[in-house]
Parts: sequence; C-alpha cells; structure tokens
Amino acid sequence: MKPSIPKGTRDFSPAEVAKRQYIIQKMRTHFEKFGFQPIETPSFENSETLMGKYGEEGDRLIFKILNSGDYLAKANTEILEAKDSNKLTSTISEKALRYDLTVPFARYVVQNQNDIIFPFKRYQIQPVWRADRPQKGRFREFYQCDADVVGSTSLWQEVELVQLYDSVFTDLGLNGVTIKINNRKILSGIAEVIGASDKLIDFTVALDKLDKIGEDGVKKEMIEKGISETAIEKVQPLFNFTGSISEKIVKLSVLLADSIEGMKGVEELQFICDNVSNLGLNSAILDLDVTLARGLNYYTGAIFEVAPPKAVSMGSIGGGGRYDDLTGIFGLKNMSGVGISFGLDRIYLVIEELGLFPETVTTTSKAIFLNFGQEETKYAMKAITELRKLGTKVELYPDNVKIAKQFQYTDKRGIPLAIIVGDDEMNNDKFSIKNLVSGEQQKVSFEELKNLLQ
Amino acid sequence: MKPSIPKGTRDFSPAEVAKRQYIIQKMRTHFEKFGFQPIETPSFENSETLMGKYGEEGDRLIFKILNSGDYLAKANTEILEAKDSNKLTSTISEKALRYDLTVPFARYVVQNQNDIIFPFKRYQIQPVWRADRPQKGRFREFYQCDADVVGSTSLWQEVELVQLYDSVFTDLGLNGVTIKINNRKILSGIAEVIGASDKLIDFTVALDKLDKIGEDGVKKEMIEKGISETAIEKVQPLFNFTGSISEKIVKLSVLLADSIEGMKGVEELQFICDNVSNLGLNSAILDLDVTLARGLNYYTGAIFEVAPPKAVSMGSIGGGGRYDDLTGIFGLKNMSGVGISFGLDRIYLVIEELGLFPETVTTTSKAIFLNFGQEETKYAMKAITELRKLGTKVELYPDNVKIAKQFQYTDKRGIPLAIIVGDDEMNNDKFSIKNLVSGEQQKVSFEELKNLLQ
Repeated sequence: MKPSIPKGTRDFSPAEVAKRQYIIQKMRTHFEKFGFQPIETPSFENSETLMGKYGEEGDRLIFKILNSGDYLAKANTEILEAKDSNKLTSTISEKALRYDLTVPFARYVVQNQNDIIFPFKRYQIQPVWRADRPQKGRFREFYQCDADVVGSTSLWQEVELVQLYDSVFTDLGLNGVTIKINNRKILSGIAEVIGASDKLIDFTVALDKLDKIGEDGVKKEMIEKGISETAIEKVQPLFNFTGSISEKIVKLSVLLADSIEGMKGVEELQFICDNVSNLGLNSAILDLDVTLARGLNYYTGAIFEVAPPKAVSMGSIGGGGRYDDLTGIFGLKNMSGVGISFGLDRIYLVIEELGLFPETVTTTSKAIFLNFGQEETKYAMKAITELRKLGTKVELYPDNVKIAKQFQYTDKRGIPLAIIVGDDEMNNDKFSIKNLVSGEQQKVSFEELKNLLQ
Repeated sequence: MKPSIPKGTRDFSPAEVAKRQYIIQKMRTHFEKFGFQPIETPSFENSETLMGKYGEEGDRLIFKILNSGDYLAKANTEILEAKDSNKLTSTISEKALRYDLTVPFARYVVQNQNDIIFPFKRYQIQPVWRADRPQKGRFREFYQCDADVVGSTSLWQEVELVQLYDSVFTDLGLNGVTIKINNRKILSGIAEVIGASDKLIDFTVALDKLDKIGEDGVKKEMIEKGISETAIEKVQPLFNFTGSISEKIVKLSVLLADSIEGMKGVEELQFICDNVSNLGLNSAILDLDVTLARGLNYYTGAIFEVAPPKAVSMGSIGGGGRYDDLTGIFGLKNMSGVGISFGLDRIYLVIEELGLFPETVTTTSKAIFLNFGQEETKYAMKAITELRKLGTKVELYPDNVKIAKQFQYTDKRGIPLAIIVGDDEMNNDKFSIKNLVSGEQQKVSFEELKNLLQ
C-alpha cells in the first residue's frame, strides 16, 4: 500500500514551491519597504496561551500535542474510567499548535515588552493549523501572512495599510483588487439607529444581498429576522448606498448624526479615504462597504477586506482591521493594534487562474549537460563548475545511459537546452547545444555558451 | 504573570529572522544552481509513516498529535485502567510532527513515483520537531536544510555535493571549512580486518582520540573495549594516518587489500577525491577521515561531515552520505539516494561568532520621517509613497508627539536617518535630513533625497 498524507494537508511540488516563494518574497519586500519587521514564533505554544482565545469552537479546532513519556501517570482515574476526553485533555497535553498568528504575536509583545520599541511594526509569514473539516480550498495546515502595528492609534497606519495592500497586489500583477473598508463604529451607529445591536449581523447579511434579491427581498428578510419596520425606515439611505466614497460618507453623516460613536466612525473613515485618495493608489480600488462586518468580536475601528479582480470569482484574498486591546488577554492594557492579513492560498489560485505567474518563476535548470562517459563528463564538469560560479543554473545527467533516455529526461523535466560533449567538442574546445524547443543545434565556445546562458 | 513559550522553542526577533533568511536564501540559490528542486511536505504525517523509522529512542522523541473530538470514545477500557500510556497512544493519536526531512522525502517519492522524473534532485528547508531534552544549542523545534538525489548511483553526485558544500560556505564567507569524507565500505573493510564489525564504533571512537591521548592511550582503550592486539597490529597504518588524501588512499589500499568491500570503498573515495581535486574548491578543504562513522545504520557509501573553520570551536555544521535503500521502508526498492544536510542553527552561530553577517543584512528602514502634525505628514507621505515605489525602505513616525521622543525612537530602532518636514521645508519643496550617526543635518530637494536613499 502506498503511503499517504493526513487529510487537509498538502505536499508542494517544485513548481508549487517556486510559485509560493515568489508570492512570499514579494510580500516580504513590500512589508519591509513599509517599515514592517519580521518575527517568527514557535509552531507550538503552551496550551494556556491559546486556549480560550478563539471561542469554544476555536478551542475544539486547536491541534493539541500529547505530552511525552508516561503521560497517563498523573491522569485522574475517574476521568479515565468515564472516558471524559474533554476533561482529560489538559492533563495529557500541555502544548498546542498555533491556530493563527495574532495570539502568538500578542504573547510575543507582552513577553518582550521591555525590549520592544513601540510603536512596533511586525510582519509574520508562517503556517497555522486548524482541525477544521477539510473542504475545497480549506486546509488543516496553511500559511498566514500578517502585518500589524501595535502601540499607536494613529490613523496614518490605516492609510499605510491600504497602500501596502495596493503595493503588494500591484506588484503581483493583480490589478483591480477592491479594498473594502468599513468601521466598527459605523456598525455600532447603525445598530443604535436600528435599535438593536444583537440584530446587527442579521442586518448586514441581509443588506449585502441587495444586488441579488432587491430592496423588497432584503426588507422582507430583515423583518423575518425581527428588525422593525420603523428601524428599517430610519436606515432607508442604506438601500440606495451608491456613489463615490465621498457621497457615501455624506449619506452616513446624515444617517448617523445622532450617534456619537457612529459619527466618530464617519470621521475616521473620512480621514483614511481622503488621504488614500490624495496619495493615490497604483491599481487597487478603495470602496466603502457598510455591510462589511468581519471580526465584529475584536475589531474596534477600521475593518478591511480585499476582493480579487472582478474577472475571478473567489472570496476575499485579504482582511484586517483595528483592535484596541490586542494584548489585554495577556495583561498588557492600552495597546491598540491595527493589521492586515494576506490569504496566500487564494492569492496563489487567483494568480494561477489569471495566468500571471511570470515564466521566470521556476527552479528548473537552464541547461543540462548530457553524459557521454567519464572523460566527456570530466570536460563537462569543468564547464559546469565555471557556469555555477557565475550563478547559472545548470546540471549534469549523472549516468552514462542511452542518449535517447537522457533527452527524454531533459524534455520531461522541461529543461530547454541539452549540452552535448563528444570527442569532436573536446578536441576543439567546444560545446554543442541542442534547443529542445526549436530543435536547433549549434556548436559554440565556452565564452559563447556562457553568454548564451546568462 | 507574563506568558512564556514551551521549553526548547524560540521566538526569533527581527534581527534574527533577517540573518536566518540571509542564510536560507543563499542555500536556496546554490541548491537551485546545482539543479536541486524545492519540495515542501506537511508538518505532520500519519503516525505510521514516521513510527518505527528512527529506532525505539526516535519513536519516543516524536511529538504525537492528539486526535480531535471525543478521542477516548474508542479507547480500550483495560488500557485506560492500566494507565498504559504506550498502548493508548496509537488509539488516541493518528498524526505526528515531522522528526526529520528524510523520511517525509522518502514517503513523497514513493507516493508520487509515477509523476517524478528520476533521478530526482530535491532540496527541502523546513522545521522539524523532537521531544529531546533541551540543551545549549539543542532545540525541540529547528530547521533542517537538506539536498538529496534519488534514483542514481553515479559518484558524480558525491563530487557535486562536495562542490555544493564548498559553494554555499564560500558564499557565506565561511572560508576554510573542512569537508571530511569517508566511506561505509572502508569502515566495513576495517571491521573485517579487526575481525569484529560489532567493535567498529568502539574502534573509530578510540582512534579519533589519537591527537588527545596518543597512540598508547588509544590502543589501551581499544584493548579495554575487547579489540585484540593482533587486530590492532593489522591496522597499525591507521595510527600514522597523515599526509595528503592521495597518500592516505595508498595506505588504505595496502591495509584493505584483502577486503573486496574495503577496496570498493577505496575506489569510490579515489574517484570522488580525484575529481573534486581536478575541478578545484573555492575555499573548503576536503579531507579523508577514517574515523568518520556517522549514520552507520543507514549509510552504505560515502559519508560526509563538515567542520567549521578552525578559528571556531563547534561541532559539525553539516553532514550526509549515500544510502542505497532510501525508499525501501515504503516498499519502493532499488532507489539509491545520496544527500547532504546543513545545520542552520550552528552555521548561524559560526557566522555570528566570526562577525561575517554583512551590515546590509537587516530589515531596518533606511530613514524615518518624523511627525510634526497633519499638514506636515501629508507632505511627508507624498514623499514616502514615491520613495517606496522606488523600492526604498522608509517609514513614518505615526504620532505627533514630542520630537525628542521621536528621535529617541529613531535612535533605538537603529534607523540612521531622520527626515524633518516643517513650514520652511514645505514652503521650499525641501526635506531636512538628520544623520543620527554623524549628527550632521542638511536640507535637500526630493531628487537629492531620492538619490541619497538609493
């Protein structure tokens, strides 16, 4: 029986690693250009660091690591007899795999608070693990790519984060992503106006369907969810919430005039959008979306979400926001944070679908020297050694087997050039190059070979 | 109470990540130059993939992951009552964290054997986990960086792997590493000559102490370990095993003349050393060391180990060898493999100790724009946006706080230049640059600023 890998995990082939590294390298470059500094945290944390930070469902989805050695020695006999998995866990497992990068970052900040110089701009690109039911596009091991600033409430950071999204996606060739922005305080204002904050999610979910089911459909759904007709009337402008960001902000100012918090949200949005607009974006579109309600449990200010270019139908490829109490869970108060995340797997799929990976994103060698025997290989290896010193990716076919087999190998590997060394080449200080794409063959000096491969 | 991380694990600060990435990037570049292709495998494997592959001690050191959900439901009641940890494990844990990169690579090759084009040259740079007792320089999570070829017995691969070591270490500025080479078949030959293969390790360990305890001391230890005087007499040449590689090979040829396997080892060594010598190394020293006996359980041909430059006292910074049956454990026979590994943590320490990290290995910004208020910041952000488009690492101090505090921040962060924008600068389209190292200040145009930062 062939071996296999656990469900929800993946092997990455050379071509896939090359493409993932391409995206990751671009992110690193832009993160650092914007002043973010990389950190890395351990794959597993003490269980108490992670447990209770993601809600009950989150606790269930955290991968726990079994203690080493005789882990049952100290286990409670009654719990064992009752086969109470829940109660046993904390006795036999003290470590757990990272579930996201935010909680480990908060832990890092609190643990190193005396050494960190605030505001601290950090980025982190590492895998996380979730015991989720695997689905198409949902994995049990996947990378998160986060950039956060902690220790300042300045809204310039929101401005810079929008620019950072634009900068990364533009460089990846993903022109026309939509960076949706909203603000938790605007959502609070709307909740005030509709008279029930517990209905806020129902409200935004219904409103988001405006395009699909029309105004009447949305209103019907809202009423079914227990939102009163009076409330719906009060927020009537949201049913015709079109136009430029400035126009939308004007509408919100009217709608939320009586909500102090709502108006604070409008003001924040205005600052961010005005400055982003003044500075200009390369290719992304900024849009105000009042139905954007992600991370309601922790975001306290701006909320971001990035939709891929319209040619691709896929969910969000990034998201983030401001959370006023990032490190409070570990006892360090008054540390406001704001950050964004990039969805590596989905970005990969979008770039693939649009055919935007450059052809140069490959780890395949530029040429292979075929193997015609010991003396020929000695001669070839001298050239290979020199070419590698110059940074050229070249390889040697290691075995002296039939040439047809070597050509087949070259072809299957996708190596464009085969280099042939026989008596004639050795006697004349030459190399024959066969182009496997065009079929052309030519005999060249080492100097010419060098130039050709560079 | 401050949060902490599990023992044996590490957080990496921005400066550390930058240096580690510097090493990793160099490795990637050279691996690919030599025709190796990257793969990545999941952090955890099915337990049956890993268990039983590293011996009993290895099995104990593998981190097991607790099954999700009600993992005790199917547990055997008697095992629970007996608190038999060993027997329970396979019931409550089906996955385990990768212990090295070799077994997952073998699993990958067998699983994808129909898609892989052999010989397959792969490299892999990923963390592994071991429940070892943490010690100075020994961690529970650490990176392995492996390059292996599978599917060919050609000794040219050993030649190329020696060149690869030389190429990476030279590029890292680590001149003068010693690449020690030996061959399993020579060790078998020695075992034949001393008449006991079970004494081989005792023999090589004792012989390795020649410098420290002298010939008499070594012989005394050998006799204590049960090696006969007659046997010791037969391998007398090994007690004066000095000279060039060629001279050593001549001595071995005499010593092992009656051992068919031993002479095969001599022949292999000669091929590798002759060709490496003909092609030349950049800075590494190749040395034949018959006491090198690492990986005796699996290596079948060449054995490699790399010692750091003599100025540093530290153990090996790399090792590898040939194993004739890499994938046999998963049922795919006759797949010879040969590979080398780089010890990232130790290489890091050696480069640090020798002060060889270039100053450019940093993620710190080149300049920071101080914050003098909203209008000034708008002006500054226009410049920042342009500079970043050009790829320059610059940042903005996000808050309009006292300038002394902003300078202090700049200084502590190690950012060399602070850029000042006040009324005067704004009115004249200028920027004032303060060099925090020299204390000098100058007023420049944007063009000048741009050039200065590039």
